[in-house]
Amino acid sequence: MTVQRILIVSGTHGNEINPIWAVKQFNSEENSVKQGIEYEYIIGNPIAYEKGCRYIDADLNRSFNESKNYHQQNKSIYEITRANVLVDQFGVNGSDPCQIAIDLHTTTANMGTSIVMYGRRLKDFCLAALLQNKFGLPIYLHEKDEAQKGFLVEAWPCGLVIEIGSVAQNFYDPEIIKRFLIIMTSLREEIYKLKNNLIELPKELIVHVHQRSIDYPRDENGDIDGIIHPKRINQDWKIIKKGDPLFIDSKGIIHKYDGDELIWPVFIGEVAYKEKKIAMSYTKKEVIYSKNEWVQAFDSL
Amino acid sequence: MTVQRILIVSGTHGNEINPIWAVKQFNSEENSVKQGIEYEYIIGNPIAYEKGCRYIDADLNRSFNESKNYHQQNKSIYEITRANVLVDQFGVNGSDPCQIAIDLHTTTANMGTSIVMYGRRLKDFCLAALLQNKFGLPIYLHEKDEAQKGFLVEAWPCGLVIEIGSVAQNFYDPEIIKRFLIIMTSLREEIYKLKNNLIELPKELIVHVHQRSIDYPRDENGDIDGIIHPKRINQDWKIIKKGDPLFIDSKGIIHKYDGDELIWPVFIGEVAYKEKKIAMSYTKKEVIYSKNEWVQAFDSL
Repeated sequence: MTVQRILIVSGTHGNEINPIWAVKQFNSEENSVKQGIEYEYIIGNPIAYEKGCRYIDADLNRSFNESKNYHQQNKSIYEITRANVLVDQFGVNGSDPCQIAIDLHTTTANMGTSIVMYGRRLKDFCLAALLQNKFGLPIYLHEKDEAQKGFLVEAWPCGLVIEIGSVAQNFYDPEIIKRFLIIMTSLREEIYKLKNNLIELPKELIVHVHQRSIDYPRDENGDIDGIIHPKRINQDWKIIKKGDPLFIDSKGIIHKYDGDELIWPVFIGEVAYKEKKIAMSYTKKEVIYSKNEWVQAFDSL
Repeated sequence: MTVQRILIVSGTHGNEINPIWAVKQFNSEENSVKQGIEYEYIIGNPIAYEKGCRYIDADLNRSFNESKNYHQQNKSIYEITRANVLVDQFGVNGSDPCQIAIDLHTTTANMGTSIVMYGRRLKDFCLAALLQNKFGLPIYLHEKDEAQKGFLVEAWPCGLVIEIGSVAQNFYDPEIIKRFLIIMTSLREEIYKLKNNLIELPKELIVHVHQRSIDYPRDENGDIDGIIHPKRINQDWKIIKKGDPLFIDSKGIIHKYDGDELIWPVFIGEVAYKEKKIAMSYTKKEVIYSKNEWVQAFDSL
C-alpha cells in the first residue's frame, strides 16, 4: 500500500457539529503527520456550518456526481461548486491528492456508532472489516438506490462514512464527541497497520444491506400524518417482522409492516430525511467472508 | 371567573413539532368546548412550521412587543405581522377573544416537563401553583432581562409556557408528545375547577428566578470555542457552586463557575439560544407563599 494522505471530512452537513469539534480537539492534540501518513482535516460545508444549517442550496453529500454534464448544468448551486473544489484539491488526481476519504456524520436516529458503505468496493470492505472487528460496529451497506447518489466518499477510490447518533442537530454532546475521537484514533492505527502489512482480517464481515426506504403516512394534502410508533422509535438495527407496528397516525390508527421478509430498519425518524420522504430504510442482514483481495486492492492505491 | 375561551398555541417555533402533533391528536379526541369553556388551538408560526425552521425573519416569541411604534417600524418582518394578527384575533380585545394563552414549546436542553412564567402576575402564579402541586414541575420565572422581551403569553392577561425537553428540533418523540397530552388534560381540569370555585391552592410555590445568562467561551474571531462540560451537560435545575465546571474549550481548558452564590442553571446548551449568545441561564430558588389574591385576580378576567 502506497497511501500517503488521508482526508478526514467533518461538517459535510453544516448542522452536524460534533465531528467538527472532535476533529478540532484531535488535530490540536496530535500531529497531522502520523507514522509516515499525512492527515488532512477539512470542513466539508463551511458556509452551512457557519449558518447552522444542513446545506445552502443542495445536500453536499449527494452532490459528488461523476458526470461532467451534471456539473456544467448545476454551476449555480453552491454545493455542486464545493464538491468540485474538494475533488480538484483533495481527489486522487487533485493538487493535494488523498487516497482515502473518511466522512464523519451524526444522525438524530438512534444508530449508535456505525459505518456506512456505498457499494461493494474491495478496499472499503477491508477498512470496514477492521473497524467492525475492533468494535463490533454495525455496517449499513447502501446500494441499488437510484434516488440517492453522489455521496462524498464515492469520489475517492476508498472511503467510509462514520455515522453516530442519536444527537440533535447543532447540539454538542460530549459523549458523541468522545466516540468520534475513539474512531479516529482507531482508524489511524488500522491504516498504519495496513500500510505496514501488520493487519489480520477477521474471518467475516456482517453488513446490513439497503433494500428500500419508506415514507411517513400522509394525508390528502400530502402532509405527514403519522409519527414513528412508540415501539419502533429508537429501535434502529432491530429486526421487524410482518405485523410489527411502524407508525401511528393522528386518528390513532397503527400502520404495520406487512412484508413477508424479516427486515432490519435504520435511520428511523432521521430529521434530515423528511424532505427526502424517508421515514426509515429497510435493510437485510448479510454475512460476507473476508478475502485477501481486499488487502491486495490497496497495492494499486 | 368569567373566562370563556382559552388559546392553546403550538408551533410558535416552527421546528418544535411535538406539541403540534399532541394538539392534533388531542383536538381530534376531544371536543373544543369542554365544560362550558371553549378551547382555541392554533399554530403560532405556520410558515416556519412548513419550512421546518424556528422562524422566518425573527423569533415570534420575542415579537409581542406592546409598543405601537415598534410594530409600525417593523412591518416587513413576518413574525411582527403575525404577532399582530394573533393579538387582533385572539387577544383579550380581539375578534375571537381569549382570556388565557398557553404556549407549548420544546427544548433541546434536558429541562424535563417545566413551566416558564414571565414576571410576577397573580393569575400566572395561580395556574403555575396548581400545575406544580399536581406534578411537582419546576418553574422558571423569567424577569429583569432587558435582552429578552416580547414573549407571546405576555400579550394576554394570563398565560404560561409549557417547556418540555430534551428533544431534537423537528424530531417526533412519542414520550414528549405523551407529556404534552397529560399537561393539556390537566390544564383543562384545573381551569374547569378554577371557573367553578373548586380549587384549593397549595401552601407555596417554588420558582427558579432568572438572574442572568452566560455565553460560551469564544476565540479571537468571536467564534464559539468551548462546549458544555461533560459534567454540566443535561444537568438542568441542578445546583452549582464556585469551582464547578461549566465548559471545556478546544485546548482542553476547563472553564469553571466562579460566582460566590449557589446557582441553578437552566436551558443548558439549548441549540436555538446560540444565536442569542446564551449557553445557559442562571437562576436562584425562591419560595413564594400562596395568596388568595391569586384566585381573586381571575374575577376581573
